[in-house]
Amino acid sequence: MKHLILLVLAIVFSVGAFCQSPNSKQIENPEPPREKGQKSVLQLAVDPISTVRIGFIGLGGRGRDAVRRYTFMEGVEIKALCDLKQEAVKNAQNLLTNKKITPAAEYIGHDAWKEVCERDDIDLIYICTDWLSHTPIAVYAMKHGKHVAIEVPAATTVAECWDLVNTAEKTQRHCMMLENTCYDFFELSTLNMAQQGLFGELVHGEGAYIHDLRQGLLSKNVVTNGYNSNWRMEYNAIHDGNPYPTHGLGPICQVMNIHRGDKMNYLVSVSSNQFGLTALAKEKYGEDSPQATREYKLGDMNTTIIKTEKGRTIMIQHDVTSPRPYSRLHTISGTKGFFQKYPSELIALEPNAHNFMKKEQIDSLMVQYQHPFIKEIGEYAKKVGGHGGMDFIMDYRLIYCLRNGLPLDQDVYDAAEWSCLVELTEQSVSNGGMPVKIPDFTRGDWNKLGGLKFAE
Amino acid sequence: MKHLILLVLAIVFSVGAFCQSPNSKQIENPEPPREKGQKSVLQLAVDPISTVRIGFIGLGGRGRDAVRRYTFMEGVEIKALCDLKQEAVKNAQNLLTNKKITPAAEYIGHDAWKEVCERDDIDLIYICTDWLSHTPIAVYAMKHGKHVAIEVPAATTVAECWDLVNTAEKTQRHCMMLENTCYDFFELSTLNMAQQGLFGELVHGEGAYIHDLRQGLLSKNVVTNGYNSNWRMEYNAIHDGNPYPTHGLGPICQVMNIHRGDKMNYLVSVSSNQFGLTALAKEKYGEDSPQATREYKLGDMNTTIIKTEKGRTIMIQHDVTSPRPYSRLHTISGTKGFFQKYPSELIALEPNAHNFMKKEQIDSLMVQYQHPFIKEIGEYAKKVGGHGGMDFIMDYRLIYCLRNGLPLDQDVYDAAEWSCLVELTEQSVSNGGMPVKIPDFTRGDWNKLGGLKFAE
Repeated sequence: MKHLILLVLAIVFSVGAFCQSPNSKQIENPEPPREKGQKSVLQLAVDPISTVRIGFIGLGGRGRDAVRRYTFMEGVEIKALCDLKQEAVKNAQNLLTNKKITPAAEYIGHDAWKEVCERDDIDLIYICTDWLSHTPIAVYAMKHGKHVAIEVPAATTVAECWDLVNTAEKTQRHCMMLENTCYDFFELSTLNMAQQGLFGELVHGEGAYIHDLRQGLLSKNVVTNGYNSNWRMEYNAIHDGNPYPTHGLGPICQVMNIHRGDKMNYLVSVSSNQFGLTALAKEKYGEDSPQATREYKLGDMNTTIIKTEKGRTIMIQHDVTSPRPYSRLHTISGTKGFFQKYPSELIALEPNAHNFMKKEQIDSLMVQYQHPFIKEIGEYAKKVGGHGGMDFIMDYRLIYCLRNGLPLDQDVYDAAEWSCLVELTEQSVSNGGMPVKIPDFTRGDWNKLGGLKFAE
Repeated sequence: MKHLILLVLAIVFSVGAFCQSPNSKQIENPEPPREKGQKSVLQLAVDPISTVRIGFIGLGGRGRDAVRRYTFMEGVEIKALCDLKQEAVKNAQNLLTNKKITPAAEYIGHDAWKEVCERDDIDLIYICTDWLSHTPIAVYAMKHGKHVAIEVPAATTVAECWDLVNTAEKTQRHCMMLENTCYDFFELSTLNMAQQGLFGELVHGEGAYIHDLRQGLLSKNVVTNGYNSNWRMEYNAIHDGNPYPTHGLGPICQVMNIHRGDKMNYLVSVSSNQFGLTALAKEKYGEDSPQATREYKLGDMNTTIIKTEKGRTIMIQHDVTSPRPYSRLHTISGTKGFFQKYPSELIALEPNAHNFMKKEQIDSLMVQYQHPFIKEIGEYAKKVGGHGGMDFIMDYRLIYCLRNGLPLDQDVYDAAEWSCLVELTEQSVSNGGMPVKIPDFTRGDWNKLGGLKFAE
């Protein structure tokens, strides 16, 4: 009898543990406590590095152009070039020799990146490899005393995000994700406007990565499509959610002061089914081709909604398999005004916010609120090129801050917050849109800084 | 002992009933079985009505303009005019007498609408009252043998949606929601294009009601703002979610053949906090004014994502309290092309879908795919007016179908499906974005019709 009562209690308790409020539930993502000997890297500054010695790892399309841009940079030395393929290293090396720059050491092969990280004459490891190797390389590099700059997304799982944060906190090294869209011209100037209060209290933001990549993803020639072993295709084929959230999310998080006065609390995410790749594969390779009959898990359109601590919402989309014009949305709505970047750059301000400003008015506003980075390096960046200049502004700022011992514009918490959506959106999508808690990677420090302020 | 075992089973069962998979859960909205003597009204057609005799209930801004438009309509008789206020009835009556039309019977006061519904010389009750009285009046009218046309939203709760469906099915009366945006020019012609396959398989759609109504909502003069007793403000003040989803959702559901080959399965919904009304109230009436210090529950921006049975997604937004230009989005992305209506009418089609077509090309496409309704009545509708003509095209079609004994363009299932979001979005928002099941109001008949086809 007693046993039975205990049994009743045990059952009630164990079933109850799974079962919170019947209607309100969240997929949890716990925040592991900070280990001993580890401390926050918020506003981390290290000693100035007069000449920044760089090792580049990953020299595909993206890495090669990074090397090209750095041949225009003052105060740097390109010490090492590393790739899986000899030809990629050679092509990058040619960029140096063509400009009479001292050749870099060459590293080729699968584990060669470790040797680069182990060198003692390198300050910064610049990572442009496939998504899955970003975090392992960055962690290894920081453990060997290097600062790291990582292409987007910096990580593909929440565990990797914590790995980056914990390693940066243990080693007190910089870990910057290379979110170039934060340095685009409209983004920088509207950030400036927002920081000066033009849009009032910010209420809602939208970002996206809408970019038709079908031809590249379905290309049989994975040498020319820029994805070694077609890794992007193979990643997307086995994942749903938003695998590439940071281009849209980064600039919106900066405008909203995420972990500098606000934080992202939870998200919900829903994907459409996949239609686009199969449809094109049928046209391109035939109804019964392996490309047309295989499974692609990633839905064409993923839409995610985030709620912040201050009560704002952020809508983020991803679609790389639909025929439509490129868009990152980049939209902000506040209590005093509104802007959007796509399909065209538009601004509406009180007291006339019911109509968009005329083009001349917008142009003059863009001049009036031109961001200091653009004033300083914008014209030169356009000449260097790289997505219209934004890539070089990003590089310039990274090197400027390192050379002057300043905190970087994007810290490891940004990298983790923006990248964690890769897994969190998949958690939500694969559970029918369930809300998912977004971890606070600062472990409670999200409200310590009074807004985003770039170091000068 | 036996009792205790039963108790164990009872507890396990009852706790288990609340508790599905720990990570995947939905707020359920059951579909009550069809009662005896009730049958589907899918494709309902009734005997032709040569002259449609109409009673108008609710003669505020919207009702008065409806009466005005009907003075341009052939084949109708305006039999009754009903409002809470004598002045509103008088104003509407003047519209008739000014055009030498036989005056209608006048009904004034709180329960006067019942008498209108009880008349035996009326075919159609046209309801333009406040949101909360839409369903009660419509149900009463159908029970008295009348067909009904109801302003949006037709209902504000799921129970009311079932009430409309069940009553229509019991009485075999038409129940059409007056979703005028389905008759706007760009919407009709893009619907035509989609039905002819221009956008390929449809993947994702977006709709919205983004319309800054702050001045009206906060107006002290509730006579001139068009909302008797400021009912819209008072509704929004105590509800969250999307109280007004149908303008954005209706045209997208038509393009996607909802309950004519596809159906909406579930939604997730997240609102921002409320910022806009309080901010403006402080400016307008002072920091300590009752308007600035009271609670407004409705968040400024609500974003909802719907997943359909065929794997499509629909994103729907509502914002009536932010200073920004009007938008209903009206966007469709498919495997062959893309269109959006706001901020400007843009179309992109394969094989050149990476760029929007030039304005001349879009104009010529709009001519080529001009919808038959526009060809038939578009120019006249523009002259009559009413949101640029769409209101009159809607009225024209309603009367045309009734006079010819044809199924209406929008049936009671449309009214229920589009309106049920009012409560379902609030369910999701108030439970932290939990997924919510969307009922199938056709009770299994959603795949019986092979697409939307307007009766001719």
